Amino acid sequence: MTASLKSEKRRMGTRRQPEASRKAILQASLEEFAQEGLSGARMDAIADAAGVNKALLYYYFRDKDALYGAVLDEFFSGFLERLTVVLDRSASAGELFLLYVRAHFDVVAKSPYYARIFMGEIMSAGRGGSPHIERMFAQYLQPIASRVLAVLHEGIATGEFRAVEPMQFMPSAVGSIVHYFAIAPLLRKFRLPGDPFSAKALQRRRAAVMDFAAAALFANRDAGVKLATEVATREAENDANPHSLTRPKRGNTARRKRR
Amino acid sequence: MTASLKSEKRRMGTRRQPEASRKAILQASLEEFAQEGLSGARMDAIADAAGVNKALLYYYFRDKDALYGAVLDEFFSGFLERLTVVLDRSASAGELFLLYVRAHFDVVAKSPYYARIFMGEIMSAGRGGSPHIERMFAQYLQPIASRVLAVLHEGIATGEFRAVEPMQFMPSAVGSIVHYFAIAPLLRKFRLPGDPFSAKALQRRRAAVMDFAAAALFANRDAGVKLATEVATREAENDANPHSLTRPKRGNTARRKRR
Repeated sequence: MTASLKSEKRRMGTRRQPEASRKAILQASLEEFAQEGLSGARMDAIADAAGVNKALLYYYFRDKDALYGAVLDEFFSGFLERLTVVLDRSASAGELFLLYVRAHFDVVAKSPYYARIFMGEIMSAGRGGSPHIERMFAQYLQPIASRVLAVLHEGIATGEFRAVEPMQFMPSAVGSIVHYFAIAPLLRKFRLPGDPFSAKALQRRRAAVMDFAAAALFANRDAGVKLATEVATREAENDANPHSLTRPKRGNTARRKRR
Repeated sequence: MTASLKSEKRRMGTRRQPEASRKAILQASLEEFAQEGLSGARMDAIADAAGVNKALLYYYFRDKDALYGAVLDEFFSGFLERLTVVLDRSASAGELFLLYVRAHFDVVAKSPYYARIFMGEIMSAGRGGSPHIERMFAQYLQPIASRVLAVLHEGIATGEFRAVEPMQFMPSAVGSIVHYFAIAPLLRKFRLPGDPFSAKALQRRRAAVMDFAAAALFANRDAGVKLATEVATREAENDANPHSLTRPKRGNTARRKRR
């Protein structure tokens, strides 16, 4: 970090920009937790990387566990917000599902630390250890899962999709989206096939994942694959940054009218 | 553990049954490492669970890290052996790929600890930490990956498969196979949709994963989906236990003749 950037960051540790300080702390924490895990992460290192003093860190976040919970909230609330914007759009079930796959991929691709933290959380859940995972699941993941399942049911009902079992199809599709990021450190280590996080590699991967899901899902496979290519290469529209958006009104959409 | 089972196990810690002792140690270690992670696992607990004394444990395995490497070797060598048997069979590329998906699913389903240990390894690789993952990848995973890629290329060449990109299709399929096991602790915690490891749940999941891959892969989708159902419900043949098998001879198969 250059000296001027650091002094720029350090200036944020004032009452003038509490939101900026909070964001900087959360970003530094995300990296520290992804690198070191919950037990290995150090509050000193986080304060230093965020350019705030330790007193301010504890002023915002009571202790390391509270900070960890806040990091998870920050990530998963962004995930929920982004995917809700996408799923609120007016489109056929097929296009909605493809937009969902694309957005899910993009959110994970934009947060290379996500896969590692989330895997760590799930592993803790297996050991009965994490107090956060139940809340994340109930508050952020369950609502998205319900909406995606509803899209699948709708597409099956209208005949746009094959008669797949939504509760099976969804985890299969999610697995094909996230697995790449789980093994990316391995791919990167072996340089197979080049940097897995380059813009080009991510673009190819995203198109492949959308093709895979479409080919397995649409009753008319050729039409589904073609739509997947079109949606994959389409310019990101107003769903690119949910924070700059007014959410589209629900209820007045072609999709809902069809019911 | 009942007293008699424990005393039965304890008797194994003699020179008479070194192989049985070694297996018991590896099994106990697998569970301990999956529960506690590499840093949290205790040699005392492993010796106790395996019913051997600590001296014998150190006699077989120099230290905890060597034991950890041996556990990984045990799992991944079994994986390689089982999948090699399957991939050596004489069948069309389509049937071979479905048999591979089935076997991969079965190996993971039989080792509920696998997903957790392997995820831990990959996470360590991300931190530059694990000295084992490169060896596992080169020695066990790379050979399987090469064979599966070859099957995909062959099926595409003969027109049995769509013209997918094998280097993309394979991780998508693997993701749909393993994701379920990664999130199973979460599913189990929320009882969605019942015990994810019951025989019935695993059978349904396996069929769904095979249907998903077949529907996305075969040029003639209806035929592929039908074949997937047939292979999914087919009785496990002689590939059920590779350790009891003479590996079929290679070279004299319909698949190779076709080339």
